[in-house]
Amino acid sequence: MANPLQSRITKLSTITISFIILLCILGFYTTHYTFTQPSTETQNPINPNPQSKCHFHDTYLSLASNYTVSHYLRSLTLHPHLAGTIGAHQTAQYVKTHFQNQGLDTKVVEYSVLLSYPTYLSLTAHFSDLGTREIEFSELGQVGSRVVRPYHAYSPPGSVMGMAVFVNYGRGEDYRVLGALGVNVSGCVVVARRGGGMSRGGVVRRAASEGAVAVLTYTEGVSVKGVERGTVMKGLGDPLSPGWASVVEGGERLERGDDEVMERFPLISSMPISIETAEVILRSLEGPQVPQEWRGTLNPKVGRVGPGPTVLNFTYQGEEKISIVRDIFAVIRGTEEPDRYILLGNHRDAWTYGAVDPNSGTSVLLDVARRFAFLRRLGWSPRRTIILCSWDAEEFGMIGSTEWVEQNIMNLGSRAVSYLNVDCAVQGPGLFASMTPQLDDVFVDITKKVKDPDAEGTTIYGQWTSRNKGVFIQRLSGVDSDFAPFLQHAGVSSLDIYYGKDFPVYHTAFDSYDWMINYGDPSFQRHAAASVYHLDTSFCGFFPVAGLWGLIALRLADDPILPFNYVTYAEQLQEYAVILSSVLEGRASVLPINTSVRHLLAAAKEIQQEVKYGRLCVITVPQRQNLDMSQKLRADGSLGEVEVMKERVLSDRLMLAERGLLDAEGLLGSRWFKHLVYGPSVDSESKLSVFPSVANAIYHSTQMEGGNNATIQHEIWRAARAIQRAADALKGDLIS
Amino acid sequence: MANPLQSRITKLSTITISFIILLCILGFYTTHYTFTQPSTETQNPINPNPQSKCHFHDTYLSLASNYTVSHYLRSLTLHPHLAGTIGAHQTAQYVKTHFQNQGLDTKVVEYSVLLSYPTYLSLTAHFSDLGTREIEFSELGQVGSRVVRPYHAYSPPGSVMGMAVFVNYGRGEDYRVLGALGVNVSGCVVVARRGGGMSRGGVVRRAASEGAVAVLTYTEGVSVKGVERGTVMKGLGDPLSPGWASVVEGGERLERGDDEVMERFPLISSMPISIETAEVILRSLEGPQVPQEWRGTLNPKVGRVGPGPTVLNFTYQGEEKISIVRDIFAVIRGTEEPDRYILLGNHRDAWTYGAVDPNSGTSVLLDVARRFAFLRRLGWSPRRTIILCSWDAEEFGMIGSTEWVEQNIMNLGSRAVSYLNVDCAVQGPGLFASMTPQLDDVFVDITKKVKDPDAEGTTIYGQWTSRNKGVFIQRLSGVDSDFAPFLQHAGVSSLDIYYGKDFPVYHTAFDSYDWMINYGDPSFQRHAAASVYHLDTSFCGFFPVAGLWGLIALRLADDPILPFNYVTYAEQLQEYAVILSSVLEGRASVLPINTSVRHLLAAAKEIQQEVKYGRLCVITVPQRQNLDMSQKLRADGSLGEVEVMKERVLSDRLMLAERGLLDAEGLLGSRWFKHLVYGPSVDSESKLSVFPSVANAIYHSTQMEGGNNATIQHEIWRAARAIQRAADALKGDLIS
Repeated sequence: MANPLQSRITKLSTITISFIILLCILGFYTTHYTFTQPSTETQNPINPNPQSKCHFHDTYLSLASNYTVSHYLRSLTLHPHLAGTIGAHQTAQYVKTHFQNQGLDTKVVEYSVLLSYPTYLSLTAHFSDLGTREIEFSELGQVGSRVVRPYHAYSPPGSVMGMAVFVNYGRGEDYRVLGALGVNVSGCVVVARRGGGMSRGGVVRRAASEGAVAVLTYTEGVSVKGVERGTVMKGLGDPLSPGWASVVEGGERLERGDDEVMERFPLISSMPISIETAEVILRSLEGPQVPQEWRGTLNPKVGRVGPGPTVLNFTYQGEEKISIVRDIFAVIRGTEEPDRYILLGNHRDAWTYGAVDPNSGTSVLLDVARRFAFLRRLGWSPRRTIILCSWDAEEFGMIGSTEWVEQNIMNLGSRAVSYLNVDCAVQGPGLFASMTPQLDDVFVDITKKVKDPDAEGTTIYGQWTSRNKGVFIQRLSGVDSDFAPFLQHAGVSSLDIYYGKDFPVYHTAFDSYDWMINYGDPSFQRHAAASVYHLDTSFCGFFPVAGLWGLIALRLADDPILPFNYVTYAEQLQEYAVILSSVLEGRASVLPINTSVRHLLAAAKEIQQEVKYGRLCVITVPQRQNLDMSQKLRADGSLGEVEVMKERVLSDRLMLAERGLLDAEGLLGSRWFKHLVYGPSVDSESKLSVFPSVANAIYHSTQMEGGNNATIQHEIWRAARAIQRAADALKGDLIS
Repeated sequence: MANPLQSRITKLSTITISFIILLCILGFYTTHYTFTQPSTETQNPINPNPQSKCHFHDTYLSLASNYTVSHYLRSLTLHPHLAGTIGAHQTAQYVKTHFQNQGLDTKVVEYSVLLSYPTYLSLTAHFSDLGTREIEFSELGQVGSRVVRPYHAYSPPGSVMGMAVFVNYGRGEDYRVLGALGVNVSGCVVVARRGGGMSRGGVVRRAASEGAVAVLTYTEGVSVKGVERGTVMKGLGDPLSPGWASVVEGGERLERGDDEVMERFPLISSMPISIETAEVILRSLEGPQVPQEWRGTLNPKVGRVGPGPTVLNFTYQGEEKISIVRDIFAVIRGTEEPDRYILLGNHRDAWTYGAVDPNSGTSVLLDVARRFAFLRRLGWSPRRTIILCSWDAEEFGMIGSTEWVEQNIMNLGSRAVSYLNVDCAVQGPGLFASMTPQLDDVFVDITKKVKDPDAEGTTIYGQWTSRNKGVFIQRLSGVDSDFAPFLQHAGVSSLDIYYGKDFPVYHTAFDSYDWMINYGDPSFQRHAAASVYHLDTSFCGFFPVAGLWGLIALRLADDPILPFNYVTYAEQLQEYAVILSSVLEGRASVLPINTSVRHLLAAAKEIQQEVKYGRLCVITVPQRQNLDMSQKLRADGSLGEVEVMKERVLSDRLMLAERGLLDAEGLLGSRWFKHLVYGPSVDSESKLSVFPSVANAIYHSTQMEGGNNATIQHEIWRAARAIQRAADALKGDLIS
């Protein structure tokens, strides 16, 4: 009996011991090597988003809420909130509190800047029949007098009298036409309609150079009694701290009388008037007939250009005040790359109530904040840091955003991925999108993901492309909104989107919630995309913007490698070079630009390949040989740093390429603007909407006896070198 | 019997099963969680180098070889190799072949630049006793006439006659002293000795503004017959492509007659002469006695200043040629952070044979290459990319390095960690080290690791500090060598080291290997650190430089986090502010700078703490909550990306802080120089060796009627904002 038992014990012991030894061996291997799990990225390079992030993006879109957006808009526009006033402070508080209530890391940054307000205005017209008429300024109706009276911020004070003369848009060509008609505007008060590509300040400066003593501007298409306020300051940011931030304590400030400050403001007074007022004046003019080429959209009642016989008596007094402006931020810290920033921005200040401009955008910003906060509670956090920005004093000259960009230029330059702007989210039907070209692809991609609120089963992409007969993306050479300091000064790739174009109550007292709900405007009937003006659609027009804005931010924040496509950028530049060539008319050669663009195209294609296949092809053989064991395999078996860094290096190359297009010397004659492809030219009539420094050189050349083709060629070289720098950044290696 | 056995089996089974279960549990935990191994970094934050890299560093130091360095030097200096000549091409080939033979990735980059050579020189002195003497120019001795005759590169042509006058160093104060003596140099040929902080070009420009017709310069302390060649061009880089690279094909080039080109060159001719020649002329002068304050080092034989009666007839003809220059690179690609660069640079071109200047440095560069290649064969590869750079045409005005920096400004800005320069490695005894302050600590650290070749058992640190009575590190405001474009234009932290100071054969024909070996100079007897001039020491003087240079490169390339210390930088800036305050004499306030420096100091201390303890304190709680499982723990159990990126982010902050000290507008009056702390002032007599733009403002203010304190204050503000930007980069977050 003992023997079989003993042998059984022995057998059992042997098996047991063998098993234990086996377990030990397994245990040993487990502690020292982990079988590498291929990441989902490697398996599916086409859809770069790990599944965990993707579902959050879908959730984002599903969070649209009718009630909240309209609620925000109502609250934001209860009272006027002109920058630097108590109303502005209250609106700032509202936004700040909203961010905080969403549990977001909220900061407020203040600047003390020079703002401008009207104190006294009077306009009297003396007609040839010896009748006179004092012009009223308050815009009639329920809106009352809580809003600031219509004026031009930074207009110098003045009291003048002169014959009225109509100058169309007030462009150089308009004055040439008047000159040919024998009309001399010297000593006159010019009346100009807004449009024709002229900025307000540009119209006033031009009129001053022609000898006018004052300027009145009016806007066609505005509701008859509305008056369009605006700034006439040249350039962006606080005028007393040009190029640096006007910090509240202890910052440098120039003297008001400094040349560098003075040149920002016009030399003659100006103010905006209503269509009604304009017609009263213009209908009374005599002299040559209005030229046929001006007829187009001009009111038929306007027959003659003057000057006179009507004489205008115009007095303007204003005060300039150092005022506190507030930028408000909500920061959602990224996890894997917290030092890379995606910025969403909208300005908060308004001339009056701001229901459309800008708080249709602000209410969407608050909604985006709400939705992001919701995602966080579900466990999401972005790969890269997302910052929601609420700017102040945009209306005065992009002041709030510009001061902040100037203060943060260092870290924005090394860390900012993109700036995504929404000013007026909804002005009417139809999506309008402008951006730097490397964003085109990802933007088109997301339009296919956001549902169109009007047409069941379709996406925004469908509506957008059918309306425009294809993909229609514009570019950002204007200084129309807060993207300007980001792109044109700091070289950060940017985007600007909105629905609709040129709404009729722009900058007037009628841009209010109540007016929109109760009065509306029949020309904005419900369209393919919903109008804001009808309560029953309950702000459906906001959802596309919230969807697009939030989703592109999520793509830029979460994609392991930035979804930038520079092939598009290079192709755009090729088209620009062709246009430039025709504008030049042989005065200089675009060959340098063509050469650089070829290099950019090659670098763009190269990195496209690297992004697509790079992960599968981890490291080169020589490198592998030189890796010591601890690098090749971490204790856990993963490839460790080398792999992680590859994606980061690719993203950095893609991010930094836009910076190459900056030049430290800036534009010829406008040093603050550093971007040599997108930016404003001094020549408002230029046929070139890009390469602003080249446009400036062409303009100056035409002003000079004999021209100056050398300067034009030099500017072309500078642009070519900028494009080459972008190519170098994309290639990511030293020329060695 | 069965029962005890059975119970034994049962007990055994129970134990076995329990044990197996225990193993399974352990195994489970092991496969899912790896106990985090504190890295050696965390355990020992003071010595950050993982052991694997450290032993390579020790190996590096052990690779010193007498034979190779002297062999390189002999080969490099066999023939003259002035930039743009055949000799230069041959030396370039030698260096390129050496790199290739070491198995290093070698590249050559060419530029076509404007160089200058002499074609005709004559100098005749007419003495009052009616004797005349034609001055000889070839430097006597075995060296023969293979070298270029002594001349000043870029001197304009001229043929003049005028009385000789001695102007000491030719500084403003020297002319003031002469004026007080009633001496007028107008129409004279001035004779000036080198020194007093004046550049050659500065001496000539000053003399021209005083009305002189030509300038002769001589150098005291040089061997009696040696003549010091040099450049008189103002500014750095190719004059026909100011601010951009003069690529060989298809680059922009200005016209020789352009204002921007012309202002780089002096208006009157000049040339260098020997001490011997100078004495012949100066001894013959009459007029007022040499002022007592000039006596110091002046040869006692020089008694009077003139002018005359000796009249000098001086003719110079030169040619300017577009020539090809070559920069040669050896690239050792980094593994973990291949997109971060450590650059080691030395120029290769020489006025004559270049045994000391610069090829004592070149031979060390080749030795460093040899040692790095050896390490690679042992399995080492650096964390960050190391680039060895051999520059051309430094003697003409830092041309080779400047063109390359201008071409690569984009990627240097975003990726260059440091630039480590060695021009003449060994000129005599004693270590001289200059660098930007964040490098002080790591440099001192490595001096404690490199053995002193002379004193057994001691390190360089011992000799260095005892000679200087403490740590003595200088700063880089001069434009003395190729670090200038890196630091003062591109904002890359830099270092420059050499042994000895002002050797006697500087820029003369005697700077040759043979001369050094066979003749030497008794004043350079063997010292604590070996002299180059004695064969028996067999170039021991080179080893400290090779050791220091290579080791600091290895530390910067391999430390997981860059070993930069900005507390030192902030403390230096504090001292500078005190000096500035005294120099200002109340004309403006340094308060803005003090404020910014406080912020920099705070940021520097903060990041010091983060580097020291950050790893132990991985991520904040809110972040941890938001990490999804795949981020928290990779399949293998490591912390994945988040951890890896933390070190990278810290290093980036440390690297980029230096860039903050750049300003796009550059220095007042010298826009190409962008660094507002270190750089050359237009005022050679300035008591300020830092804040060059402030120094320029002070200088201009003194030139103006009534002064201009507003400009001085503005420049102080600009410097303050630059320091603030450095603080911002160090803090690494947006002001939000």
